[in-house]
Amino acid sequence: MAVSPLENTLFSDLFGDRDLSEILSDSNQIRQMIRVEVALAQAQARCGTIPQNAADQIAASLGAVEVPVADLAASTAQNGLPVPGLVPLLRGHIPDQAAQWLHWGATSQDIIDTATVLQLRDCLVVFETRLAETIDALQDLTAQHQGLPMAGRTRTQIAAPISFGFRVAQWAQPLLRLYDELPGLRATLLRVQLGGAVGTNTVLHPDGPEIAGEFAAILDLADADVWHTDRSPILQLGAWLTQLCAALAKLAGDIITMARSEIAELAVQGGGSSTMPNKSNPIQAEAIQTLAALVTALSPALATAGAAGEERDGMRWSLEWMVLPQMILAAGAALGHGATLARTIRPNPAAMATNLAADGGGALAEAASFALAPHMPRAAAKTLVRDAVLRARDTGVPLAEAMPEVANLDWQAELSLGRPTQAADDAAARIFADWAKRGAR
Amino acid sequence: MAVSPLENTLFSDLFGDRDLSEILSDSNQIRQMIRVEVALAQAQARCGTIPQNAADQIAASLGAVEVPVADLAASTAQNGLPVPGLVPLLRGHIPDQAAQWLHWGATSQDIIDTATVLQLRDCLVVFETRLAETIDALQDLTAQHQGLPMAGRTRTQIAAPISFGFRVAQWAQPLLRLYDELPGLRATLLRVQLGGAVGTNTVLHPDGPEIAGEFAAILDLADADVWHTDRSPILQLGAWLTQLCAALAKLAGDIITMARSEIAELAVQGGGSSTMPNKSNPIQAEAIQTLAALVTALSPALATAGAAGEERDGMRWSLEWMVLPQMILAAGAALGHGATLARTIRPNPAAMATNLAADGGGALAEAASFALAPHMPRAAAKTLVRDAVLRARDTGVPLAEAMPEVANLDWQAELSLGRPTQAADDAAARIFADWAKRGAR
Amino acid sequence: MAVSPLENTLFSDLFGDRDLSEILSDSNQIRQMIRVEVALAQAQARCGTIPQNAADQIAASLGAVEVPVADLAASTAQNGLPVPGLVPLLRGHIPDQAAQWLHWGATSQDIIDTATVLQLRDCLVVFETRLAETIDALQDLTAQHQGLPMAGRTRTQIAAPISFGFRVAQWAQPLLRLYDELPGLRATLLRVQLGGAVGTNTVLHPDGPEIAGEFAAILDLADADVWHTDRSPILQLGAWLTQLCAALAKLAGDIITMARSEIAELAVQGGGSSTMPNKSNPIQAEAIQTLAALVTALSPALATAGAAGEERDGMRWSLEWMVLPQMILAAGAALGHGATLARTIRPNPAAMATNLAADGGGALAEAASFALAPHMPRAAAKTLVRDAVLRARDTGVPLAEAMPEVANLDWQAELSLGRPTQAADDAAARIFADWAKRGAR
Amino acid sequence: MAVSPLENTLFSDLFGDRDLSEILSDSNQIRQMIRVEVALAQAQARCGTIPQNAADQIAASLGAVEVPVADLAASTAQNGLPVPGLVPLLRGHIPDQAAQWLHWGATSQDIIDTATVLQLRDCLVVFETRLAETIDALQDLTAQHQGLPMAGRTRTQIAAPISFGFRVAQWAQPLLRLYDELPGLRATLLRVQLGGAVGTNTVLHPDGPEIAGEFAAILDLADADVWHTDRSPILQLGAWLTQLCAALAKLAGDIITMARSEIAELAVQGGGSSTMPNKSNPIQAEAIQTLAALVTALSPALATAGAAGEERDGMRWSLEWMVLPQMILAAGAALGHGATLARTIRPNPAAMATNLAADGGGALAEAASFALAPHMPRAAAKTLVRDAVLRARDTGVPLAEAMPEVANLDWQAELSLGRPTQAADDAAARIFADWAKRGAR
Repeated sequence: MAVSPLENTLFSDLFGDRDLSEILSDSNQIRQMIRVEVALAQAQARCGTIPQNAADQIAASLGAVEVPVADLAASTAQNGLPVPGLVPLLRGHIPDQAAQWLHWGATSQDIIDTATVLQLRDCLVVFETRLAETIDALQDLTAQHQGLPMAGRTRTQIAAPISFGFRVAQWAQPLLRLYDELPGLRATLLRVQLGGAVGTNTVLHPDGPEIAGEFAAILDLADADVWHTDRSPILQLGAWLTQLCAALAKLAGDIITMARSEIAELAVQGGGSSTMPNKSNPIQAEAIQTLAALVTALSPALATAGAAGEERDGMRWSLEWMVLPQMILAAGAALGHGATLARTIRPNPAAMATNLAADGGGALAEAASFALAPHMPRAAAKTLVRDAVLRARDTGVPLAEAMPEVANLDWQAELSLGRPTQAADDAAARIFADWAKRGAR
Repeated sequence: MAVSPLENTLFSDLFGDRDLSEILSDSNQIRQMIRVEVALAQAQARCGTIPQNAADQIAASLGAVEVPVADLAASTAQNGLPVPGLVPLLRGHIPDQAAQWLHWGATSQDIIDTATVLQLRDCLVVFETRLAETIDALQDLTAQHQGLPMAGRTRTQIAAPISFGFRVAQWAQPLLRLYDELPGLRATLLRVQLGGAVGTNTVLHPDGPEIAGEFAAILDLADADVWHTDRSPILQLGAWLTQLCAALAKLAGDIITMARSEIAELAVQGGGSSTMPNKSNPIQAEAIQTLAALVTALSPALATAGAAGEERDGMRWSLEWMVLPQMILAAGAALGHGATLARTIRPNPAAMATNLAADGGGALAEAASFALAPHMPRAAAKTLVRDAVLRARDTGVPLAEAMPEVANLDWQAELSLGRPTQAADDAAARIFADWAKRGAR
Repeated sequence: MAVSPLENTLFSDLFGDRDLSEILSDSNQIRQMIRVEVALAQAQARCGTIPQNAADQIAASLGAVEVPVADLAASTAQNGLPVPGLVPLLRGHIPDQAAQWLHWGATSQDIIDTATVLQLRDCLVVFETRLAETIDALQDLTAQHQGLPMAGRTRTQIAAPISFGFRVAQWAQPLLRLYDELPGLRATLLRVQLGGAVGTNTVLHPDGPEIAGEFAAILDLADADVWHTDRSPILQLGAWLTQLCAALAKLAGDIITMARSEIAELAVQGGGSSTMPNKSNPIQAEAIQTLAALVTALSPALATAGAAGEERDGMRWSLEWMVLPQMILAAGAALGHGATLARTIRPNPAAMATNLAADGGGALAEAASFALAPHMPRAAAKTLVRDAVLRARDTGVPLAEAMPEVANLDWQAELSLGRPTQAADDAAARIFADWAKRGAR
Repeated sequence: MAVSPLENTLFSDLFGDRDLSEILSDSNQIRQMIRVEVALAQAQARCGTIPQNAADQIAASLGAVEVPVADLAASTAQNGLPVPGLVPLLRGHIPDQAAQWLHWGATSQDIIDTATVLQLRDCLVVFETRLAETIDALQDLTAQHQGLPMAGRTRTQIAAPISFGFRVAQWAQPLLRLYDELPGLRATLLRVQLGGAVGTNTVLHPDGPEIAGEFAAILDLADADVWHTDRSPILQLGAWLTQLCAALAKLAGDIITMARSEIAELAVQGGGSSTMPNKSNPIQAEAIQTLAALVTALSPALATAGAAGEERDGMRWSLEWMVLPQMILAAGAALGHGATLARTIRPNPAAMATNLAADGGGALAEAASFALAPHMPRAAAKTLVRDAVLRARDTGVPLAEAMPEVANLDWQAELSLGRPTQAADDAAARIFADWAKRGAR
């Protein structure tokens, strides 16, 4: 048991994510804060708030500065955040006359929130790429296994036939929606923060909006009213991550079920036992579920953090720091496992056929019942089908052979798997329709 | 202590909501399910799946049918959901030949999900109306109190002056965003569900999509691929409700703080004590926080419910029923209190002035410090201001009088409240800018 | 979708509990509050704080009073709690001279908390009874099926043989612990609350402790220091309920898995499909999981409620009311389903044998490997076993026949199910050992 | 924003805890796992299961082995847990004949769970020490400020006088309870885990219980039936930590409120602003609230993890690893801040007196009302007091002077602060009574 399985040496190859860990490291946070301070000075120079040559000196002086994280630890503990320690330290790198113009009219929250947004922008690139890879792989899987019937299950019971492709398409369905939401999410989230001490930019008044505009332009972010206390963009990201995890948990849960020893409709890589060749532990799918449960658990804390008190809420703001990066890393790691699974799982058609035929072919009972509908009252049809299923089960014949002759009904045709498989593959195709149109991605 | 404070007789005037309770009642759920069954039959008739006169008879027979909730309780407990009990009961009202066409090719989930969507549509109307009322009232409050300075607080400490209007605008800021999201939320959420037993509409194949289109048209909902296992629309509603509650909790928290005995910057109605005239318990604001905490707590359960297993997940689906309507009712009740508070709170300018001037006028220290910036190094300026604040505190004079003479600085002007108040009111105006443009709503 | 599935007409036979609903009704809450007011007056009379005949008149006057819940709704909404409306209403039933002694020196919280404790006492009786019934039934199940082998599964894979009795004993294990904790929980929880306006009993000073002692004696509760702001007893109950739900969710999850179509090791009642005789939806087990998820989701809100601000926290206290009774009812309903399942599930030995023998008898690979340990190096043994399992799988012979001859090893004996079944049954017996000693319960 | 604020360099001085981080590091986890493997071999030798000299060689060979964490990362990712990689690596350090007896009959869970328990034992020592220090400091604070009146607040409103000591004692109240629960928690938690592959110790049968007994004795832990799937001890620890955090959040919340600029009844160290001498951000108290919110959010995930499926649940078990150590570290860091605050906060009697006297002395209205009770009907008394309070407020005289003459009432005496302060200090003394008796700790 160790504190940081998302990042420590022992567990991070399983529960962590190198790309996101780099973006969400404390050292990168500091780098981004420096970048933000420089951009702010440049923006203020453009607007005439500070001298242009001060901004130039700030940019030149801080361009290559690396502040060791350890140098900020003590002041961060004392002040509750890293900016009050960082700013004087940065000023030490800048010629005196220019140094005082660093962080002009700004407050810690402006710097931290904007740096966070820069980190989030990089994170979203990772998510977008992986999401596309996962959807592509699921689409390929669907395409490769067209016409492969399997038993659909409702409430854990074999119900009626579907196709493997439809099962896979259901995994993709929420992922497709989440992919489509990325532009809107970026528009909401990727905005500068500039409000000064209490959010009103008094020191910069009346030039706050103009400076914010230049600030945004320099950082290639959107302009925005101050959002010190309106954390809804963060909450929207949290909601997106939580929905991503719900989607991945469904995929993982289904894979775990399909890969169970008794079901065996799917082979997953890894987790094999040297002693027991029958065992193949679904490690990656379990990891997705674990990570998804973590993200889900953390999500309400983000909502709590979202109700910032007055003009700045120290407790709730730092709760955001405690929760959001963990959610991002865990969701990203889960998505990484999801992409791998999508590329590597292999269906087992024989097992699927066996399960479909089990129990007297009860999976076809619904089809039989509807086939009888035009020929007799509903209740009679049900009884007839029920008896046939039990007979098929006891005698081991397929249901089509156990059904009594009825009028012009061709039971082999009525109970063939062609129709349900086609219906399922068509449903899968509809789910992927828009994605398929994107063509050569 | 009683189980259902959102709906029972004792507490529902405080924690409940009559409009939403009516929409989300079990009797209305049944009414909507019947409406959905009728619409489905009509859609299937239009597509030639069932005879037109069967659909006509179904519509005519069920038009005025009211099924007592108690008649479905036992079968609901047995089947885990109300449709298997409802359908035969409805068939009993329909002529034999037509009766068998009721619920043709459908599954319980089609009926329940679509009925839920109809309920949600009505709920969203309530939310939209109340949200607009609340924003209007906050905008009015801002307008009525233009130029009213108060102390901005960061990390619970008096920091620098803002205006009352800016405080109020911060409350509106997330509400404005949530209002703007309603069309997108409706587009995602208000869709029919039609998939049959395992989501592939095998029985209706290949007419499923066409029937779904007619079904949607009749109910004035959007058409959709089957979303049996993709609960992300529900999760998006949950996220919206949770964000609404975070926004309201901020508003309520600020009101409670401002209405504290020692701060007294705001008067709220009600909760008075007959014995202690000094007490005015902020009942409604507390209720908002209580309800928001409930919604927030329930929200991850919705994400859990979102990872439906296989083609239908009995446990997760009923978890959705357990959680979502409570979230809606609680959020709606909280919004109702928010609207009332927005209309009825009254600022106390005298207390605001007293708090702003307290502690040697430290709230103006930042302004003094920036005024000195062109005249001396930063550190020297800070020391000078600090000393002046302490002097003002000890002697009881305003900070402007305690500041030493510096160059051409007019301390009365530099430390007037005009500038910060104007900066704050401008910031508030920007927040309301788009809403104001909507004109006479 | 309807707001109160724990209590409304449609769903409460599935998700609700009549016994607990009665105890936790608003009308019973009022009855208990009246009872508490009477007991307080009697205690104060015993201590000489109020006249004995005033207490007598109060007791006589209120003995049979029933206050309609509706009469308190408006004042509850206004005051945020029902006592300020209740007390004057009760005084109206008491002769004038005595009436003023009602509620003497008490505060609303004294009355509400003590009434809550009385309700909780009755709830705990329900839980204790059901818990004992469930454990008894599980113990019976274990006893009835001694020597019945089944496959143990780890990480969803068939691993090695256990017995059905051991599986069942694992379900009982946390329930036994929870049963044993009941006396301690009662000792913590069942205490009077008496603190007056701010928890110090100033008005009753210095007789507060003495009065509290008499008050406790009359209500047959434990005496206690005031615990207005120390909600840890409530949190302990919440933790107990949450643990109960985790235990029941394990039982339910295992039952759902065992009752899957493809596994079929267990038969559950109900949820049958009239069309598909192969389906038997595990409605009650799913309901347990749904209810457990609700309780789990609500539990952190109880912790939030536990951090009461200052001398009374309106928001957090009412959050407790919002959350705790739901948790009790849901946990109680889940326990009810658990008791029923424990009494009614039936194992399917044939299916268990089939699953144990599947895949070349891989479930015995570990046993084979350990049998070989004295005869060859570990790695060699593993390879040998692995090959034999694959051979057994391909040829369809039992693993014992597929194993190569080794020294004096009798593979039929080594790989018999007798030893693992006995080991498992012994482990089960140890879990039930203390319970069994309680004898004829 | 960075992923691991509990442990990274930038934030861990604020949100982390060095002592607990060391115990809960991945390197220490490995050390403890090795220790457990050695102890198991020794126990098995004592029982004759493995040769004594094999156990001796194992102990001798592994006594000083340090396994670099990085060497286990890849196998951990592959297997989902570190033991399958660790065991062969350890065997490499042991002479061949002995090596095969390492990990005999054990499963990964036996090793990991028992190692976890050893880590938890060390953690509990840290908690016990800090809890005692915090309670001692709170007791000292109470003792030092005997007789210091302050306003009690209910629902955020000044209600009636208490003493500072009573406020402090309320903070201690749940901490005292939690301290008293430590022995019981240890008895439940500090137990060996030994069950083998599926929890039944088949390989060791029938010596499992005897070996477990020796295993426990060697590690100075309690003996236990296998608890592979019964995670209730872990859940109890989680509940204890969550309750601790609720207690600390109450303390922190009250401190933040008391240290607000407008209330100023308490001085906290640190968080000062160089520009604004009026500001003193309550960094540590906020950190407590942040950490407590994190622990609370994570707690339901522990309950989810508690419902382990079948004989081992990969997903839920690793969820435990994800959640529990974070909860411990965060709760421990919060307790560290609590101990510091308890030692360093200083009350401001002048501000307390000012707040008590504010608003016409309304804080004494209840006392005045009860003083009048013997002299006139309740309603008349209330009106009279209300008018006096308003008169006192308007004229600025103390309430005692604004009260009308009544019979033999001495208003100065009746409305003195002596009585409520004494009542409050007595209540505080009762809370600390048992702790005080422990004498020279």
